Amino acid sequence: MEKKHHVVVVGGGFGGLACVRALKQERVEITLVDQRNHHLFQPLLYQVATSILPTSEIAWPIRHLLKDRPEVRTLLAEVEGVDPEARELRFTDGGRLHYDTLVLATGARHSYFGNDSWESSAPGLKTLEDATAIRRRMLSAFEAAERSSDPEERRALLTFAVVGAGPTGVELVGIIAELAQRVLPSEFRTIDTREARVLLVEAGPRVLPAFPDGLSDYATQALAELGVEVRTGTPVTECDGDGITIGAERIPARTAIWAAGVKASHAAEWLGVAGDRAGRVPVGADLALPGRAEVFVIGDTAAVTNVDGTPVPGVAPAAKQQGEYVAGVIAARVAGRALPGPFRYRHQGSLATIGRRAAVADFGRIKLRGALAWWVWGIAHIYFLIGTRNRVAVVWSWFWSHTTGNNSARLITQGKQGIAVPRAPSVD
Amino acid sequence: MEKKHHVVVVGGGFGGLACVRALKQERVEITLVDQRNHHLFQPLLYQVATSILPTSEIAWPIRHLLKDRPEVRTLLAEVEGVDPEARELRFTDGGRLHYDTLVLATGARHSYFGNDSWESSAPGLKTLEDATAIRRRMLSAFEAAERSSDPEERRALLTFAVVGAGPTGVELVGIIAELAQRVLPSEFRTIDTREARVLLVEAGPRVLPAFPDGLSDYATQALAELGVEVRTGTPVTECDGDGITIGAERIPARTAIWAAGVKASHAAEWLGVAGDRAGRVPVGADLALPGRAEVFVIGDTAAVTNVDGTPVPGVAPAAKQQGEYVAGVIAARVAGRALPGPFRYRHQGSLATIGRRAAVADFGRIKLRGALAWWVWGIAHIYFLIGTRNRVAVVWSWFWSHTTGNNSARLITQGKQGIAVPRAPSVD
Repeated sequence: MEKKHHVVVVGGGFGGLACVRALKQERVEITLVDQRNHHLFQPLLYQVATSILPTSEIAWPIRHLLKDRPEVRTLLAEVEGVDPEARELRFTDGGRLHYDTLVLATGARHSYFGNDSWESSAPGLKTLEDATAIRRRMLSAFEAAERSSDPEERRALLTFAVVGAGPTGVELVGIIAELAQRVLPSEFRTIDTREARVLLVEAGPRVLPAFPDGLSDYATQALAELGVEVRTGTPVTECDGDGITIGAERIPARTAIWAAGVKASHAAEWLGVAGDRAGRVPVGADLALPGRAEVFVIGDTAAVTNVDGTPVPGVAPAAKQQGEYVAGVIAARVAGRALPGPFRYRHQGSLATIGRRAAVADFGRIKLRGALAWWVWGIAHIYFLIGTRNRVAVVWSWFWSHTTGNNSARLITQGKQGIAVPRAPSVD
Repeated sequence: MEKKHHVVVVGGGFGGLACVRALKQERVEITLVDQRNHHLFQPLLYQVATSILPTSEIAWPIRHLLKDRPEVRTLLAEVEGVDPEARELRFTDGGRLHYDTLVLATGARHSYFGNDSWESSAPGLKTLEDATAIRRRMLSAFEAAERSSDPEERRALLTFAVVGAGPTGVELVGIIAELAQRVLPSEFRTIDTREARVLLVEAGPRVLPAFPDGLSDYATQALAELGVEVRTGTPVTECDGDGITIGAERIPARTAIWAAGVKASHAAEWLGVAGDRAGRVPVGADLALPGRAEVFVIGDTAAVTNVDGTPVPGVAPAAKQQGEYVAGVIAARVAGRALPGPFRYRHQGSLATIGRRAAVADFGRIKLRGALAWWVWGIAHIYFLIGTRNRVAVVWSWFWSHTTGNNSARLITQGKQGIAVPRAPSVD
């Protein structure tokens, strides 16, 4: 039997999965390696963190998505390094895996801009565990406030600070504010959850910096209507378990969430190359590592320049397009066909929701805001979910949440490490 | 304002919640204390452990269930002890709470019959965390087997031992066997998941000991058809991370689950009374602590004798009936009405499923088995779920699982502590 060209893809996110899918019916065998067993629909992760959706509605076992592809093998393994000379991946358990072509699509984590100690006080939102940890902290803060007898402590427990006013930050504060204003008031007896303070802190001059000014202004106004305090032009200078400091102002806040920056995964270290400021691997116009034509890096872990010279943004559609592009290059090489031209990013538009009724959408010439934008956002996200089961389940969760005003997945799970327990004993 | 009689209920399970609900419109104020924020529908917990249902479909925030009861306050707090003289609860954080009447409904945990060290190797199934931990171990074992190159190790990874053949044990092995036989085969490339060995180990002479012989025989046969190895009359004598020992036989099994016994919560210690062999608090015919008429103990943490002299079983309907009964006693005392007679348990029948097509049901004179029993089981469980949202969601999950043969909630989450990693490095 002829030995087929072995493509190893690391990372089952949008980029890696798109690459594997686009290699269908090519003369290659594929191994998809991920340290998790599931593909995650990150654009809706904030809805898990805020208890609207259960975890399983936005995650799929990777090997299930590829079960009809007998030439694709899925491995749950953690990569430790790459040996480019031997063309081998090294795993943390000592295993090795030979590749003919390697595609690294390992994504990004949060960046605390050199203040990594802030992570334990202000977790970011990239994984299902991040989402359930944020959900636990947020819900536990309301619980602890209900038991606290110290007004100052209660105030700190009912202050929620989200750092970073990109789409994730805006989406998080919108739902947290609605939770405090509309969902929870009837359930607490001692506290009035409507007194909760929800802050959105942004170092730059305005919210949603990637959107046009008009939509940014609309978002600011819509957030104000939800009761969110927007603080722009104020970088965070300190962050601990008790609160955050912005400029000279100290804000006691027991719950802080980090949505301010990303840094790439360890792909640059694995390859032994210098990453850019965000740790991303600089790649050529064909998304290959310069000097290593058989190693591609795509998605949030790559620094990609578009054909027009602008940097390609770290968004899901860009990762998907890169995955498909690289699949085309690999297929052309294996088949001896002409190689495609340089990677060309097609921007499909930007969307962000504000609470459960409004959104902003920027499709270049067409700009939408309010309820219409929300519907466009909702339909687009249902469309991009995988499979009938999760589409129906998410629509049902949304329908329920919108008609009853209740968030159903309000579970505090996984131990006590994240519970914001009152410092002073509560006395009844 | 008149000071109302203060009823403190500890535990928001079936018993505690039934008590609070039955006290509606009585002249009392109520505090419901639980160390978790959610009420859990334990009869379907095995379906979370085996990846059929997501966690949020069988759990509800307790305070949400009681939001229309302004006289009920819900507290998330951990009880450390009771001071019966002062009529106070003590919390672990130093807080105290005065009661006029106390109802302890704190349930049970697993019992390892003196071998508590077995717990880390063979976790039990009582909480959502237990369920996701078992799910993680089970799915991780298949993942590790796919990577292992050692046939002996692979065999141990693909051996799943469930200890205890009551309804939970029978239900767990049924779904695990179906997972290995029908759901997973098309998703793995190196291993054949149909070679997985699923064992049900029981110290007693037969499976489902609480059911009549005929249904027990049917269950044994139905399990055999699913490929489950049933071993009765064989107590486990050793249990560690590598396997279990039954009698003289050592069975290498990386995944073991404990469904063999329960021990009561710490209520007896809190009260400073002697518990029975299972740690349960012996109570009188009115479910009150002898000599302490204002302290009731109900559900799995109480040793209750029925009016006919038989012990009341530790099942959900018994806990509910006890909660309702105690509510009646409290209401009568507060209102100065005549007290009800002794607690009388009405057995409503027993149900257990075997895989996704068969079940056994024992309603006294009426005994059912097979597909009809499965439908009775399914309809009964949907009926006992709370609220439209979760009923629809569970029906959708079941419909999907049955028609496509896929389990949707197959997520490995929450860290690596439970992953069955191959011992020898895998070599590709």
